[in-house]
Amino acid sequence: MLTAAIGTWKLVTGRADKLFAGASEERLYTELAPGKNRLIYLWGHLTAVHDRMLPLLGLGPRLHPELDAIFLTAPDKTVAELPSTADLTSAWAGVNAALLAGFDSLTPAQWLERHADVSPEDFAREPHRNRLAILLNRTNHTSFHLGQAVLAPK
Amino acid sequence: MLTAAIGTWKLVTGRADKLFAGASEERLYTELAPGKNRLIYLWGHLTAVHDRMLPLLGLGPRLHPELDAIFLTAPDKTVAELPSTADLTSAWAGVNAALLAGFDSLTPAQWLERHADVSPEDFAREPHRNRLAILLNRTNHTSFHLGQAVLAPK
Repeated sequence: MLTAAIGTWKLVTGRADKLFAGASEERLYTELAPGKNRLIYLWGHLTAVHDRMLPLLGLGPRLHPELDAIFLTAPDKTVAELPSTADLTSAWAGVNAALLAGFDSLTPAQWLERHADVSPEDFAREPHRNRLAILLNRTNHTSFHLGQAVLAPK
Repeated sequence: MLTAAIGTWKLVTGRADKLFAGASEERLYTELAPGKNRLIYLWGHLTAVHDRMLPLLGLGPRLHPELDAIFLTAPDKTVAELPSTADLTSAWAGVNAALLAGFDSLTPAQWLERHADVSPEDFAREPHRNRLAILLNRTNHTSFHLGQAVLAPK
């Protein structure tokens, strides 16, 4: 069952990788539709959210906490200077590699343990708030933004 | 683990239900962005794809095969007459209820059996092509279109 969950993560992350890392500089700075977010913002947003999964799943410290102020807290087009495409490409690849290595290190029992954002008391009442739920949720989060990203003009 | 997978399906389908079944008639016929699909098309498309899951997962015959010609084969804005909102609301609810009842009827071992679109020979080589993979994939498919649907003007 874990194979299926990690397989879906890989499939969806691979699609996102192809779309974002394969986009031209010009396309990255294009809005999805008039007045909407730009592709570069979605990409940075996904990188920040994936980076936060590392401590959330107990897989280690964050690699790029500096992304939050640009891609999570602030809306698009409010921060003057974004990371270069080369830096974002590298952050995205590094975070996803760290996650995949971490996924492989977890036993099935550990996938059903609580994640770091839920207290032992809350977890006793809500045992579905486990690592696996984070994996499934974040896979769908990527799909959500991927659906938006494909709308950006080619 | 199945609880987590079915829980994510319920969460995502519930969000789609709120968005589509809760949309005004006017909003349903609005394009996501100039020249893109309309909300009603996404909704019908999701209903048809979910309906196809019934035979695919061995849960019974399709309830609404008539939706394919309108929402799967044909692009949006090429079919003159769409189902009424009342009919689509009813089809969407009926299909999802049938799926949930079916999900509950499957044992963990059955979730890891092949789905109906893969032959026994192919399944021997590719054991990941099981019912669970369909559930995870279709949950992400809904998230993909949900990401698009939220872009439609309010």
